[in-house]
Amino acid sequence: MPASDVEEYLRECRELTLHELATIIPAGDRCREVLYDLMLEYPLREAKALRPALCVATCRALGGNLESVLRSAATLELYHNAFLIHDDVEDGSEHRRDRPTLHAMHGAPIAVNVGDAMLALALQPLLDNMRLIGMGKALRILDVIARMARESTEGQAIELHWIRDGEWRLGDADYVRMVYKKTSWYTFIAPMLIGAIVAGAAHERLTALRKFAALLGIAFQIQDDVLNLVGEGGKYGKEIAGDLWEGKRTLILTHALRTACADERGSAERILAKPRPPKALPDGEGSPAGGSDGALAALREVCRALKARGDLTEAGERAIADVVGAGAPGQNVKTGAEIEWLLSLVRRQGSIDYAREVGARYAARARRALEGAHWMPPSVHRDLLENLVDFVVTRER
Amino acid sequence: MPASDVEEYLRECRELTLHELATIIPAGDRCREVLYDLMLEYPLREAKALRPALCVATCRALGGNLESVLRSAATLELYHNAFLIHDDVEDGSEHRRDRPTLHAMHGAPIAVNVGDAMLALALQPLLDNMRLIGMGKALRILDVIARMARESTEGQAIELHWIRDGEWRLGDADYVRMVYKKTSWYTFIAPMLIGAIVAGAAHERLTALRKFAALLGIAFQIQDDVLNLVGEGGKYGKEIAGDLWEGKRTLILTHALRTACADERGSAERILAKPRPPKALPDGEGSPAGGSDGALAALREVCRALKARGDLTEAGERAIADVVGAGAPGQNVKTGAEIEWLLSLVRRQGSIDYAREVGARYAARARRALEGAHWMPPSVHRDLLENLVDFVVTRER
Repeated sequence: MPASDVEEYLRECRELTLHELATIIPAGDRCREVLYDLMLEYPLREAKALRPALCVATCRALGGNLESVLRSAATLELYHNAFLIHDDVEDGSEHRRDRPTLHAMHGAPIAVNVGDAMLALALQPLLDNMRLIGMGKALRILDVIARMARESTEGQAIELHWIRDGEWRLGDADYVRMVYKKTSWYTFIAPMLIGAIVAGAAHERLTALRKFAALLGIAFQIQDDVLNLVGEGGKYGKEIAGDLWEGKRTLILTHALRTACADERGSAERILAKPRPPKALPDGEGSPAGGSDGALAALREVCRALKARGDLTEAGERAIADVVGAGAPGQNVKTGAEIEWLLSLVRRQGSIDYAREVGARYAARARRALEGAHWMPPSVHRDLLENLVDFVVTRER
Repeated sequence: MPASDVEEYLRECRELTLHELATIIPAGDRCREVLYDLMLEYPLREAKALRPALCVATCRALGGNLESVLRSAATLELYHNAFLIHDDVEDGSEHRRDRPTLHAMHGAPIAVNVGDAMLALALQPLLDNMRLIGMGKALRILDVIARMARESTEGQAIELHWIRDGEWRLGDADYVRMVYKKTSWYTFIAPMLIGAIVAGAAHERLTALRKFAALLGIAFQIQDDVLNLVGEGGKYGKEIAGDLWEGKRTLILTHALRTACADERGSAERILAKPRPPKALPDGEGSPAGGSDGALAALREVCRALKARGDLTEAGERAIADVVGAGAPGQNVKTGAEIEWLLSLVRRQGSIDYAREVGARYAARARRALEGAHWMPPSVHRDLLENLVDFVVTRER
């Protein structure tokens, strides 16, 4: 199955998921325009919809049918997009999938509320499952969802902790533990377990699938980290080297720091400890909620006017521009040249190749785990799971 | 039962709730410091814990026992505090219960993640209910939770819509509909329904309790709005006239606009359409996540230095201070004098007294609804529900 077949399978699942989401999200309600329509904003943008596809493929590969799994699969997409909305607010991100983020369009209050409402709405189809697939399966799915949410918020907490505390004494095992919680559970383990539960798979089969999903998730995240440093902006759809600007603890960066000489390591840690500069000044449209972007644009204008009428010198304007770009008093921000230097360090240490090798090893272990699943008969759905292993480590976005 | 008895009952329930929360929130985990400890930050601050008390009182008044309801009651407090954390991030609030908000202490990313993790954690005790109180009751409670979350996010969406669109053509019925969703469902209906379900109450009793809770919730919110305009800062613990600064659609303000002459109404709408000024410049500590507060403090310092060495005139400094305080270019912000004028308009129109009367009418209807509940035998728990009616409309915080 070439990559295009994987993409075709994903595309079909995505269509089905969007149709199902339309039945979960209330329509024709008085709250439609300010609440329910906004829930479809992210899902309707270009996306892989990997989670529902994994859920559907696992279920069908184990003999389950589409009708009984689709509602749970769509619920995973609802959860995922709710968390994306919250992530974007947390990170102050301006773009998501090549368009403005929800809070950039409608303000943070409406965006956070839409995310909360999506999390709330996701409970109902999981309760409807009681009638659709029976009490026992529905309850086990709810248990998986609770565990998924717990694991991923714990993974997130660990990463935020490292960033806050400037922690860099991290080995690959620390990274893998964090990614297992943050990526494997959320994107691979929970979708596959839910698909398998719907299909009525026995306990030991769930254990095998869980192992496959954990390994694949780690390979997936490592490739994500690689793409962040080598991808092209337009193709990948995210900011290049954003992980370096944000000081994310990736396998690549921890390897580079671990293997660099003491001097370079010290320089790198000093750079990484600095905050990233504020986003570029907006054109005045700004976000409706947060006034600070608008204030920056206005400040730039007033400085120009003050200089024109002699109330501010050239040097004064530069000093103001510097400090406004400086985050906090006395604290420098990362510069483009420093990020370039970090990138060159990463390349000199061979850290990207190292990460690719580690990722390939996890992918190979995942492949072997799936090969051992003799109880899963050949099918286009099993093919998808198998070919996803290659797709995950060779994908370019 | 004097107010002090109501407060004593609330206090006891709060103690029990905190103990129960400690068993729901994992301890001794590696994520404790960055995740689980932070979940108790708000609950441990001074709070009424009204929701668990309503849940416990309803259950026990109907013959249910404490052991079977306490876990559900504590879960309500977990949900409530998760939403408070998210609300504070949405609103950029600096203080909650007389102390810094969670995001002011740890940054928005950690705060939003803690809120999400609390919402995730809240699912588990509701699933544990299956074993504790049986499948049927546990499922009905999950249905109530799903409905509660949906109603309150809808209420929130309606209010945010009004504010975004500058909508002021609102009658009391619009306000009541919004508050029924936002306050009644969340704070009164869901806690009481859950308590009654645990006690095994029959359908028609649930209907009667729901009516009582809906009416009491509306009375509660009206008193909340009144306190916002007449309370003392320290006692009430929230900013005085914050609703006017934020342009909230209260019964009081919509009455004042509806009854004012066209000129005054126009002036009031023009003031209310303006954004509130940014929060006061911080002392430099700032929030660790958002750099913009720190940037403002740094800007103030650099302007002082530039002025000292002649790079900036006095008029230039004032112009910069104006624009930085001005939110967005060309947009005025509300001033203290304008808020004073709005307050005087509200008083001239007798809108606070009007709201008090309407609130008292809802409270009286709630009291009559409870009086009709002959199937609820006299007990200290029924007393709590009855006396809560007076407490709700006479409370001063």
